[in-house]
Amino acid sequence: MLCRMPPHESPLGRLRRGHEELVLSLLRRHGPLSRAELGGHSGLSRTTLYDIVAELVERGAVVATPCDPALRRRGRPVETLTLNPEAGQAIGIDFARRAVHVAAVNVAHEVIGSASRGHAADLPWEDRVALAERLVGTLGEGPLRLGALSAIGVGVVGPVVDPDAERAPGGPHGDLPALLRKRFAVPVLLDNNTRLAALAEATWGAAADDEDVLYLRLSHGVGGGLVVGGSLHRGAYGLAGEFGHITVDAADGARCSCGGTGCLETVASVGAVLAACRAAGGTAQNLPDLLRAVAAKDPVALRVLESVGGRVGAVLAAVSNAVGPGVIVLGGALAEAGAPLLDAVRAAFTADLLPLAREKVELRRASLGEVAGALGAIALVLHESPLLSRYPARPESEESS
Amino acid sequence: MLCRMPPHESPLGRLRRGHEELVLSLLRRHGPLSRAELGGHSGLSRTTLYDIVAELVERGAVVATPCDPALRRRGRPVETLTLNPEAGQAIGIDFARRAVHVAAVNVAHEVIGSASRGHAADLPWEDRVALAERLVGTLGEGPLRLGALSAIGVGVVGPVVDPDAERAPGGPHGDLPALLRKRFAVPVLLDNNTRLAALAEATWGAAADDEDVLYLRLSHGVGGGLVVGGSLHRGAYGLAGEFGHITVDAADGARCSCGGTGCLETVASVGAVLAACRAAGGTAQNLPDLLRAVAAKDPVALRVLESVGGRVGAVLAAVSNAVGPGVIVLGGALAEAGAPLLDAVRAAFTADLLPLAREKVELRRASLGEVAGALGAIALVLHESPLLSRYPARPESEESS
Repeated sequence: MLCRMPPHESPLGRLRRGHEELVLSLLRRHGPLSRAELGGHSGLSRTTLYDIVAELVERGAVVATPCDPALRRRGRPVETLTLNPEAGQAIGIDFARRAVHVAAVNVAHEVIGSASRGHAADLPWEDRVALAERLVGTLGEGPLRLGALSAIGVGVVGPVVDPDAERAPGGPHGDLPALLRKRFAVPVLLDNNTRLAALAEATWGAAADDEDVLYLRLSHGVGGGLVVGGSLHRGAYGLAGEFGHITVDAADGARCSCGGTGCLETVASVGAVLAACRAAGGTAQNLPDLLRAVAAKDPVALRVLESVGGRVGAVLAAVSNAVGPGVIVLGGALAEAGAPLLDAVRAAFTADLLPLAREKVELRRASLGEVAGALGAIALVLHESPLLSRYPARPESEESS
Repeated sequence: MLCRMPPHESPLGRLRRGHEELVLSLLRRHGPLSRAELGGHSGLSRTTLYDIVAELVERGAVVATPCDPALRRRGRPVETLTLNPEAGQAIGIDFARRAVHVAAVNVAHEVIGSASRGHAADLPWEDRVALAERLVGTLGEGPLRLGALSAIGVGVVGPVVDPDAERAPGGPHGDLPALLRKRFAVPVLLDNNTRLAALAEATWGAAADDEDVLYLRLSHGVGGGLVVGGSLHRGAYGLAGEFGHITVDAADGARCSCGGTGCLETVASVGAVLAACRAAGGTAQNLPDLLRAVAAKDPVALRVLESVGGRVGAVLAAVSNAVGPGVIVLGGALAEAGAPLLDAVRAAFTADLLPLAREKVELRRASLGEVAGALGAIALVLHESPLLSRYPARPESEESS
């Protein structure tokens, strides 16, 4: 959540972007409008409006179509303005450990497409950004028009705690923000990619029907995110959603990468589960082995997953009693183990949940797959870009229109 | 969070209340203003404004003072309008198990005063409401003028889950909402009194400097509340903040009043602590005994508190890793045990908290005492009354004024 404004943008530039967003938002809300109707809705002066519209048409964000002349009686033809469905308005990029995922939405906030590409873990930021740019170019039908782009949302691995530190050159994510601003010349909003996956599942995925969502990702690490009232919840110091570091075994727990002991991550990450299988005499060497063993009903694999599911369910119940989500979404590579894990999670969750709440929370599998982080980065732009949020696509009440 | 509007209020009545709130809010924000200045700021027509002001003056919410005639050259004297510091604008009432607590703020949002009175546990609602009304009458200097009253916030014992059920006659809290509306003729906002204490501590109390606050009350029950971004967080089904029912001992835990097993309440309530002391050979029969034993450094009492503090700290760390509060406030009768309990809580909390977060969360004693629920009920009105919130007392940015 940083770098909200491109560097060196002047107050006048911001004002102009605001006017552009207002016009785009009115076209999203009302559908096709004439310039006169846009003037009435926006309150912008005729000169300003014509200027803004000309710019948006030139950039490909808006298309002007002459009205049917048969419907008109005299004077020069009136044009109807519509959003260009081929124009990208927001891009999301997830820089995962060994892959780049991208997605884009058009000016009507429809997802145009997504793409992913793996790479070596040590690929420099400059090459990752170039890869992301190439992938973005493959989205949509024909070349994506970026003239209407309002911002880029970016997911990264690891905690995103201090926006100011991120903004500075050589911050926790190196030159990434600067590289992106240079390539795309728009504001960059950055957050942890697991948290962004939570926002994506709550916006387009398994919990799109709920505003209070708890997302847990069981993968090579264990992380998550909280969506509260439809918005990403970061907490007072940017670390909310660290479910993987809730202590589940204070007495005999293993040392965790975070510096703590007995964290959920030390029992429920893919590595921890494989280690537990080996300790119990299992043969699975990696996740595909494990998933095959589960599918073949291997008793060791099933026993380990049941035990892990119990720990996960207890943590989810504790957090639910505190936070009260309507939907819990379970994602990440380990969730692909399916029912043997999920049933154990659900049993422990239900046992520990406040009885009054038992009928009120649903536990679901994540639905967006590996591109969730990139989609969440777009959702971040649509939720939090100061200009976009000032003119919401879907007004809360029609009174405001 | 219900009964937002008094029954039978017409759309015109609501509009009028909106205009009144706008005028009061402008006087709060700008200080004394003339009618002409109020007209300029409010955008209300001269006729409407004069009408609204006359009504507010008549009700005692606003005072009109003639300007110094020496400063004027001709024409009839201009009056300056100011808020009446003796007029109550919002009242909070906490209907606790065996006591009624009340508090009031004036139209400038300053707390005028508070009062408490104990009663038998089986006192009927009608008598409790009458008692509350008498207590409200004792607040302020001289009789409190209720002409500017905009709403009443009310705290009750037990979960407040379903506003619609509450609104109906014979709902979970009986005729209480109807009785209050009849007495005071203004909207009634109702919530759980522990959750309201959380909001009070985050507004006027130990965490008034933070927007993300976790409040835990250790008393005859164990409960709490979460304040997220300055607002009370209820969760998807109205049960957020039930820290007392997070499981801490799934294997050997005692049965809890909620229907679960091994909840924090079964080890950290006053009754559970006294039982643990007795089991360890202690002699404390009640809370004052226990507090005396702690003060006298009785080893049994200290050992029990240390163990209980450890459980509490672990739960607080788990919730903090999930939610990321900036301040944790510990309240309730048991917190009066002071350092022996708090030090144990802090040690366990720090051990289980994500190391990255350790410098970022503060653990503090509650500061508002038994009147916290009533103060929180006022904060609820100031935060959530739809008319008040539309015209905030303290604008977020001066640009909007």
